[in-house]
Order: sequence, then C-alpha cells, then structure tokens
Amino acid sequence: MATSLIHGKYIISRPGADAESSVVITDGAVFQRDGVIEAVGDYRTLRAAHQADEEIGGPGFVVFPGLVNAHHHGRGVSTLQMGACDDSLETWILSGWGRRPHDHYLMTLYTAMQMIESGTTTVMYNHSQTPVTGIEDDIAQVLKGFGDVGMRTAFSVYFRGQNRIVYQDDDAFLAGLPSDLAADVRRYLSATAMPDDDYFSMFQGVYGKYQSVESDLVRVLVSPSNVQWVSDEFLTRTKDYAARFNTAIHMHLVESPYQKEYGLRRWGKTPVAHLNDLGFLGPEVSFAHSVWVTDQDIELLAGSGATVCHNPSSNLRLKNGVAPVTSMLSGGVNVAMGTDSTAINDDDDMLQEMRLALRLHREPGIGASAANSQQVLSMATANAARPTGFDGLIGTLEPGRRADLVLAERSSMEAPYLDQNIGPVDALLNRGKPRDVSTVIINGNVVYRDGRFPGTMKEDVLEELRQRFAHPVEPEVVHTRQMVQRLIPFVERFYSSWNAERLAPHYRYNSRT
Amino acid sequence: MATSLIHGKYIISRPGADAESSVVITDGAVFQRDGVIEAVGDYRTLRAAHQADEEIGGPGFVVFPGLVNAHHHGRGVSTLQMGACDDSLETWILSGWGRRPHDHYLMTLYTAMQMIESGTTTVMYNHSQTPVTGIEDDIAQVLKGFGDVGMRTAFSVYFRGQNRIVYQDDDAFLAGLPSDLAADVRRYLSATAMPDDDYFSMFQGVYGKYQSVESDLVRVLVSPSNVQWVSDEFLTRTKDYAARFNTAIHMHLVESPYQKEYGLRRWGKTPVAHLNDLGFLGPEVSFAHSVWVTDQDIELLAGSGATVCHNPSSNLRLKNGVAPVTSMLSGGVNVAMGTDSTAINDDDDMLQEMRLALRLHREPGIGASAANSQQVLSMATANAARPTGFDGLIGTLEPGRRADLVLAERSSMEAPYLDQNIGPVDALLNRGKPRDVSTVIINGNVVYRDGRFPGTMKEDVLEELRQRFAHPVEPEVVHTRQMVQRLIPFVERFYSSWNAERLAPHYRYNSRT
Repeated sequence: MATSLIHGKYIISRPGADAESSVVITDGAVFQRDGVIEAVGDYRTLRAAHQADEEIGGPGFVVFPGLVNAHHHGRGVSTLQMGACDDSLETWILSGWGRRPHDHYLMTLYTAMQMIESGTTTVMYNHSQTPVTGIEDDIAQVLKGFGDVGMRTAFSVYFRGQNRIVYQDDDAFLAGLPSDLAADVRRYLSATAMPDDDYFSMFQGVYGKYQSVESDLVRVLVSPSNVQWVSDEFLTRTKDYAARFNTAIHMHLVESPYQKEYGLRRWGKTPVAHLNDLGFLGPEVSFAHSVWVTDQDIELLAGSGATVCHNPSSNLRLKNGVAPVTSMLSGGVNVAMGTDSTAINDDDDMLQEMRLALRLHREPGIGASAANSQQVLSMATANAARPTGFDGLIGTLEPGRRADLVLAERSSMEAPYLDQNIGPVDALLNRGKPRDVSTVIINGNVVYRDGRFPGTMKEDVLEELRQRFAHPVEPEVVHTRQMVQRLIPFVERFYSSWNAERLAPHYRYNSRT
Repeated sequence: MATSLIHGKYIISRPGADAESSVVITDGAVFQRDGVIEAVGDYRTLRAAHQADEEIGGPGFVVFPGLVNAHHHGRGVSTLQMGACDDSLETWILSGWGRRPHDHYLMTLYTAMQMIESGTTTVMYNHSQTPVTGIEDDIAQVLKGFGDVGMRTAFSVYFRGQNRIVYQDDDAFLAGLPSDLAADVRRYLSATAMPDDDYFSMFQGVYGKYQSVESDLVRVLVSPSNVQWVSDEFLTRTKDYAARFNTAIHMHLVESPYQKEYGLRRWGKTPVAHLNDLGFLGPEVSFAHSVWVTDQDIELLAGSGATVCHNPSSNLRLKNGVAPVTSMLSGGVNVAMGTDSTAINDDDDMLQEMRLALRLHREPGIGASAANSQQVLSMATANAARPTGFDGLIGTLEPGRRADLVLAERSSMEAPYLDQNIGPVDALLNRGKPRDVSTVIINGNVVYRDGRFPGTMKEDVLEELRQRFAHPVEPEVVHTRQMVQRLIPFVERFYSSWNAERLAPHYRYNSRT
C-alpha cells in the first residue's frame, strides 16, 4: 500500500503547551505516501487533492501522533509476574536477578503488542537483561520481535560496570558478607560482567548491523545505565561514541534518593552537577526517572537541552517518589515519558500512564502548578521524540514527518454525552483507553487494524509464552532467589545510615502540622 | 433462587493487614441461603455437605468480598463530561453549578452499572445535587435506580447551610461583587437553599420510607456536608439524630488546604480538633477525603473510632493533594476508600482506584512506610463496611454475613504466567481489571453474570441518556455557566491571601535542595 488518507473528526496535529498552542484540525485528514506524511488538513480538501490507495477512519475517530514510550526494558511478562513484588528500587533490582530465563523474541512480541494496543508506535528500549553470555543473540531476538510487529525502536544496551550490589565497590561490600554467600554472589556477578571495551565493540556491532540496514525503524543508542554504575571514564567514552556515531545517549539518573546521596557522598555534589562538570549534559542525552533533581539540577538540565523521561508509575511502585515534573516543565526542561515496563496496571498502557501523569502533577491550591492535557500529550509525543534519534521524523503529524499515528474511536470516550466545553485532547487524556484504540499506523504501515493485529495473533503469543513457563521454576533460579533472600538484609543494613538529608519537597501534598 | 454454592480457586474470606493476617481459602467455596452466608470453606467439603440450587464459578475464579465504594455522589455522566474540567476544589465546585438537568433514575442506573462492573456491591451515596425543589422525587429516582440494579446503598443527602460561594458568609462575599452579578448569584443560591429544619424533616421522611421498608439493601444516614458549610448547631443536631435513629453520619472534611485554614482562622484550631471539642467524633462518623489532617488530628480520629474515606483520584484531580494514608493506618484510623464519582479514569472503577491507592502510598526509601495489597483491599471492603450502617453484615465472606461477593476470572490476571511467589490478593490488586469481573452477587442475588446485566441492558441506558442530552445545552445552564465564569475571578481573589502556613509534608516525594 503506497498511499493512504487517514480521516478523523479531530486530527491532533501538534500538541502544544496548552489548548491555544496546540494544533487540532476538525474534520481533518492526513495523507501519507510510503510512510511519509505529505499533507495534513481539511478532509474534503485533501480528499479532492489526493488519490489515495486506501481511506482509513472517519468522523467517529480522533487521530493523534503515535505515542513514544521513552523508557522501557521490554519483558512482556512483568517483573511482578516473574515473582518480584514491588519494593524499594535498591532491593527490588536484586529480586530481578531471580527472573526466569525466557524467550526474548516471544517476550518482545508480547510487550510490543501491549504497547501498540494503547497507541504506542515508538519505544526507547533499554536492554537490561542478564546474563551477558549470548547477548548478541538476545539482541537479535528483541529486534526481530519489534521488527515483526512493525514497531519503531530506539535501542540501547544498558551497561553496569561497578557497584552492582549496592552503591559501593563490589569487593568492599562482598568482604562484609559470610564467605559462602560472598562466593555465590561473586559467581553471579562474574556471569553478568562485561569489560568496558566489549560494550563499545558490541555497540558498534549492533549499530552496524541494524541502524544502517533498517534505519527507517531502528536507532541504536549508547547507555551508561547510571552514574553510580559506571566510571567517569566510561561516561566520557559514551559521550565520545555518541558524537562519533551521531547517536544519542540514554541512561537512568537520580531515580532514588540513595542515588542522589551517592553523588553527594562521592563528589560532594548532585549527580546532575557532576555530569555537568564532566561536560556530559547535552541535547543528545536523555535521563530516565530524575525524581531527585534539585532546583539547581533543573536549571542545568534545561540549559543543556537534555531530556528527562518521566516514569510516574515506576517511581511510585519502586518507592522512589514523584518527579517534580511541573517544576521541570516551567524550568524549561524537555520532559518525555514512558512506562519503564512497570506501568500502574502492569501492562504498559501508555494512555493510562499519561493519565496518571496528568492526575499526579497537581499541587494543591488555586493557581498552584498543574500539568495540563496538552503538556502530557506533548510529553508522550513531540517531547519524547527528541532523544530517540528519530527527532524531526516523529512526534507530530506534519508534512515531512513519518506516518506514525493512532485512530481512536470517540464513541466510548464521549458516551453517553460529552459537553462541547471539553476539547478532543482533554477527552482523550481524561477518558481514552486501549478499548478505544482502533487502528495504529507506523511508518505508513497498518500494524493494528480494528482492534486486531494483522499478522501474529496475540493469543498465540500468550499461549506460547504460557507453555514456555509451564514447567517448574528452574533449579538455578530457585538458587538465585535464595541467594538474594540471604543478601537483602545486608543490603538493607548498608543503606540504613544513608538518606539522612533534610528534605524540602517540591510538592506539598499534605502536612503534619 | 434460595441457595447457591460459589466456587473459586481462591476465596478471599477476610483481608487483613498483611498476607499473614488475611484469610484466603484455596480450592474453596461459599454456601449462601437467601442472601446469608452459611458456610465458607473447602469446596469439596461444602459441596458434600450442602445441596445448592445453583453452583457458580469454578477453579478459574478468585472470589472476594463485594467492594464498598465509601464515598460517591452518583452522576454516571461525570462532571467532566458535563463540561467542568478538573480544577481546584473551590472553583471546580462552582463550575458544577453549570451541570445540565438530568434524569436521576437513568444517571443512577448508569453509575451503578459502572460500579458493579468493577466489583462494587455497596455504595455510600451522598446526594449533593441541586436544586432542592423536587428533591423528594430526585431521591426516589436515585433509590429506584440503585434498587433496580440490586445495589446495596448507604444513602444520605448532603446539607450546606452557609458559606456556599467561598468559606465566608454569603452576604459578606456578595457585597463585594458587582450588583448585577450579586443578584444573579443570590437567585441561584436561594433556589438551592434549604432551612435546617427542612433537612431533618426530609431525613425522617426518607428514613421512614426506605430504611424501614427495604432494610436489607438501604440505610439512610445524615450528612452535614462539611464544617465550613454548616453551623455548629447543625452539627450537634446531626449527632443527636444519628443517635436517635441509630444511624451513621457521613460528611466531607479537610478535603482542601483552604478547609483546614478555615478552621485555623475560625476557631484557632484544625477542623478535626474543633469536632473533637464539640463531642462530634465517634465510630458512627465517616469523613471523606481528610487530606489535610495533622499528626494530632490522626490521634483524635483514631481514638474516636471514626472512619476516613480515602478518595485518591479525586484528591489529585481537584488539586487537594495526597491524604497521609500510611500515617493514618499506622496511627490506628479506620481508613475506607471510594471514588467520589471522580475516579482516575472518570469511570468509577474501584479496582483501578484501589490500585492507585496501592501505588500512591509508598514513601521513598528502604523501610519507609507503604500500603500493601491486603491493607488496600481491607480499605475497600471490611474497613469501608464499618460506617455504612451495614457493619457486621458485609465486608468479609464469613458465616452470618450477607452474600455480597465478586467472582473474577484469573486467566487475564495470570496470563501468560504468574509466579507462585505472587499470592491471590497481590495478583488481584496489581493486575485485576473490570475485564476480569465475571459475576457479582449482592444479598445472594446475581446482579451481573458472565459480564452482563441480567435485566436492563447497559447499552440501552447509555442510548437513553444520549438522547436526553442530544438537544442543545439549556439556556438557563448557559446562563449559569456565564455567571460562574464572571464569579470565579472574585473567588480566586478571595483565597489569594489564604494558605500562607508553612507546611511539613507527611510524604517526602522529592526535594528542592
């Protein structure tokens, strides 16, 4: 199919900072040829001007730019389903060691399908799976999964080179453990370790294999995981590689209060200030979470053009708090958003994640700051596009951009009545659900039509996954889980003296006095 | 149908404070006769012991006590759908004046159906509709609506006798408005005014007509709306009436920071402290919202046995903040929960509301307080039952209690895999959705079976509602909306000097420094 005309009662062409600065076309259409948008405008005018191979949609639909999930780790079967209940990040991440081995292709198909069902067309996928043996095969399976579903992917492999048990040198921490436990943990760590050089070789290999070949749908980024998990030298190298390969950098930052405190203990300054001193900040860098940013950090981030990827559900679920999104937005930071594979309903639903962000960032009182629907939609589209490597190609529905878009039925959102005071962006952000997502188009291809995937059936993927996990939990997984259970009290003890700082919250949501 | 045996892979008989104190029966069943539970236990044993007219469920289901929505105002078509975008409570409530007139019966059918679809069997319905002319008919229509769907209802009419524009005497505030606007607002207020005596006569009428006749499914409570909206004399009278009629009191309290400040300005103490001084607190009293409670307030509430009805979505949407639920739970307050007709997805989904509560109340850091799945389920069942007037009859699945229960399919919650580490309460609270709610039983009657309502079709209700609203917005509504638009700047000016107090948040979700 070379051309199509996508018709909607409303075309949300470009979400802005408010209703006035957003571009929404009533009785509009998008005309695309071979995946590139040629025209956006009045439906009748476009229909008269363009002979399309296919017309999709109609007055019963609202059409919006495909959503960009700006921070994600794949999985499909969630960490919770794998047996790790939500907990504080620093202990939860250890529980993740006890995840069962799985088929990366099937898991990716499942997670991509879930994302598409809620209107997601691009994912910032950060590969954080262990072990490293066979990682090239795993990567191939992941990218085949996203590719077969037709999803646009900003791919990176997350690198951790140090402080992998707690935010302290591994050997120093292991020295305080009973020797048999220390030996056990050491074995686990060595199976998941990768030298710095190997990471960059691997990056070059993946970049060469995928970005050059499938550049329409794949970008390959570098990812130094987080400041406490890599050396400063490694950070500087990623910055150089990003420049050399003209790609972007995606990482985590001040996700938890402990990560902030690590910076204060290690360098006497916040991690953001440290990155600024290293000359690391820049428009090619995106930081997931960024809950524990100070006012000064916000200024540095805004000045550098870096992106923050907000993950509201994950931040709550892993006991990291609430990122000061309204302060970042008013401070000029480019704020994107994603589900971190830990959405509120454990299902990667971006519409629900946007709604949580919309609800969550509302300081009490008349005139106090609050995120609006347009801002949140921007966070999940135009803002999120910037650090993906697809900047300028996705995020809005405008001529020259790629045809990544979603058709959502208006009927349920507006049933049985919706007052004319409520515009289409407010309706979508307050009431839209995966139930309403009818058709999803990526790069001009219909990857989801009338609520169904045209190729592989989701039910079949689920059934295959079910069969793969139908046997008892593997003995080595049981062993790892037992090891982690023994390890956690030592980890808790390690952090018990941390986090003594006096806090002055950005958000005043209640008061003891 | 006189008897039934309800069978589930898991019967959540009584949620507790944690997994250990919760009672969950594996391969269990509930046997009920004429709406009363006679036995709960092992399925095979119960099946051998009881000849049931019908067997419902099977190993594919989890069975839990019907959810109690502990604070609700009916509506069906939400305030947002009626044209009022979310805003600060004090201005949002004025926007509500511009709601279109509607059919109370149809609106109640719709709202009850939405609630049942997410497993709600009892509602604390607080009638806050205006005008008062014809209120007896409106009440009859509301109770007919809940009755026809078969829902258990703790009914009250909310009374506001003063300070109805801002938290100041109406005449004093009106004196500061342009005279034509003041006259217009005065007309609106007089159409919605009710003398104190009339309220109590009305209560007696409703109590006599419904509670005595349909005592199985209806309780009639008194409701003095909130401390700033009624006189102390009125509060004392409600306390007396509650004692005389052996009924409960349901009201709002410190929903916004301004309501707390009203107390500080009016009495030099918090509203909770003032109610304590009046001798008003007690186990028959439930307070919606209670976001702005201090440590001392929490002690007073806990000591009195009063209930707090937590409304997490509403508190965020109306810019009121986050109630300190973990502090209240650890302080011994009976915390219930509800949607306030303003749920996160604008759809009264109690499973989603429970999940938001579960996610929201997690202070950062290892060992910091966090609500668990069992506590949140208790908040929506056993705890919520206490202030409804149905205490001892609902909230758990135990012999002697009424058969109000929900069968949810495990398949989607557990697909394609759920590790054995994750128990049924964690699975339900983390992953359950209305999609999974298969069958709902209230007082032994199947009100929802295999995802359908046996009597009235929901589609028909929606279609009827659609037709009722299909004509243009009524001229008087347009007029009221214009009046409110003129009024709001004066209201904003009124509050601009309020809320100067220094806050010491219960929850430290981020930090400026």
